[in-house]
Amino acid sequence: MTWEVLSIIGTVAFAVSGAIVAMEEEYDILGVYILGIVTAFGGGAIRNLLIGVPVSALWEQGLYFQIALFSITLVFVFPQFLMKHWNRWGNFTDAIGLSAFAIQGALYAAKMEHPLSAVVVAAVLTGSGGGIVRDMLARRKPLVLRAEIYAAWAIIGGFAIGLGWARSSFELYTLFVFITLFRIFSYTFHWKLPSRSIYNEKSHFEQ
Amino acid sequence: MTWEVLSIIGTVAFAVSGAIVAMEEEYDILGVYILGIVTAFGGGAIRNLLIGVPVSALWEQGLYFQIALFSITLVFVFPQFLMKHWNRWGNFTDAIGLSAFAIQGALYAAKMEHPLSAVVVAAVLTGSGGGIVRDMLARRKPLVLRAEIYAAWAIIGGFAIGLGWARSSFELYTLFVFITLFRIFSYTFHWKLPSRSIYNEKSHFEQ
Amino acid sequence: MTWEVLSIIGTVAFAVSGAIVAMEEEYDILGVYILGIVTAFGGGAIRNLLIGVPVSALWEQGLYFQIALFSITLVFVFPQFLMKHWNRWGNFTDAIGLSAFAIQGALYAAKMEHPLSAVVVAAVLTGSGGGIVRDMLARRKPLVLRAEIYAAWAIIGGFAIGLGWARSSFELYTLFVFITLFRIFSYTFHWKLPSRSIYNEKSHFEQ
Repeated sequence: MTWEVLSIIGTVAFAVSGAIVAMEEEYDILGVYILGIVTAFGGGAIRNLLIGVPVSALWEQGLYFQIALFSITLVFVFPQFLMKHWNRWGNFTDAIGLSAFAIQGALYAAKMEHPLSAVVVAAVLTGSGGGIVRDMLARRKPLVLRAEIYAAWAIIGGFAIGLGWARSSFELYTLFVFITLFRIFSYTFHWKLPSRSIYNEKSHFEQ
Repeated sequence: MTWEVLSIIGTVAFAVSGAIVAMEEEYDILGVYILGIVTAFGGGAIRNLLIGVPVSALWEQGLYFQIALFSITLVFVFPQFLMKHWNRWGNFTDAIGLSAFAIQGALYAAKMEHPLSAVVVAAVLTGSGGGIVRDMLARRKPLVLRAEIYAAWAIIGGFAIGLGWARSSFELYTLFVFITLFRIFSYTFHWKLPSRSIYNEKSHFEQ
Repeated sequence: MTWEVLSIIGTVAFAVSGAIVAMEEEYDILGVYILGIVTAFGGGAIRNLLIGVPVSALWEQGLYFQIALFSITLVFVFPQFLMKHWNRWGNFTDAIGLSAFAIQGALYAAKMEHPLSAVVVAAVLTGSGGGIVRDMLARRKPLVLRAEIYAAWAIIGGFAIGLGWARSSFELYTLFVFITLFRIFSYTFHWKLPSRSIYNEKSHFEQ
């Protein structure tokens, strides 16, 4: 039950983020719906393909689908209202979605007795795959590969579940709070993963 | 039989549109063939993956494959000849393809007893998925998400079939004529779906 | 055994090329790993989906996965060291990967008794699909569709296997040497496939 509520929060956050990107790119109303739906369900769909969940599972999420469509409609009809609150609540609900989806994706793969690598990939794809597809459809560089730490928390969740550290309900909720909090810390304090420019390194070296 | 003729017209139109985009982007001859094939078959391939059609179905379309390869060859060898006629016939044949493919995609999903959402998604993907992959491979913003109404007609076709409004041969042909005509009206009269720029809205609101 | 060594060389070359593109685009360390992994395994994953190999096959490549992760780590930690040697060895090892992967992809599809078109597509996707996904994630125009002849050698390999010209071990090794050599010739002597700009043609024609 609790996981369902968290999944619903995440679905809304992902759908809204897709709709906003589409509006920023001046896509038409259909583009807004498509990017919203793709962001909310694309990560799970790619995960299902890669770990071999029967595709019919995708089409049994009727309730989530309707909630996503409803959220996107709200964004399109009342964009001003949303934008006032999105800066404060958008990142927060998105963190809940990242965390809830990563944990559920990892549990899916673990239940199918896939090896650790598959569990970790399932966690990353479910948590951040939708955002990557969204950015590619909007012709942007995928945000999760460059900005404040995002997908890395999903990876840690995947390891925690794949290695069997988190199994009981209590452990999974603790993991959920951990991932959500650290994602919130990441954008609040601008935590970034190290990056390395090949060219700077080279020039530095050749001096 | 009639559907096969319509599918062949659509396959040619899609393959040619992919080849033209590749030549506009100065891809080499192989890129021209790849974009042509991807545009003609990509939408159906993604649909098959998402609704669970066995993939072998993709490889039984030998005739369509050869027709697509032949069309692309003609485009590459006689581009001047084609361009004279493409402005007049290109959009027309593409409308036939959109319509025929959307209806067949929806019928596929309906036959598998998927819910309405899957039927609609199958219609959209089969009708316009190839064009989206084409634009992404050419690093363009997907046209169908921004320009004159396109994928929306596929969605309406999906609803008509998913809700059981169109079942008999006669109803399906009527639906086909309807989608084709309205797509032609869309580009002839520049019908666009509403779009909403977040920034304009905001500035408008904050004045 | 020999094929395994060649596959390992190819996996390293592909993973390193993905990591380098990510560093050129200033992605963070996670982006470097993701692009490396996607380049090394993305082509095979798409092929598996399209020809119907059970997805579990993807997760049984533990050794290759670890080798890829190790190579990417080396690139990220010692970029200067790598860049000194990459120009000489990068294209060479990449040619081995293209050739080994194309042949194995074609053999997979042939073993499943798919028609010729599927064998050729499997060869192309396994050999160059990862590079295409890499370029799209980095928001670049796919290199293999424009630069020195690349995927075309994979296509020739696909035909050789699909038509039954190369069956015995000896024939397959000969094919491997042929594809590798011709890829090396292609970038050494700047062999390009013909391309045709629609606009130049047109202006030429209308003069």
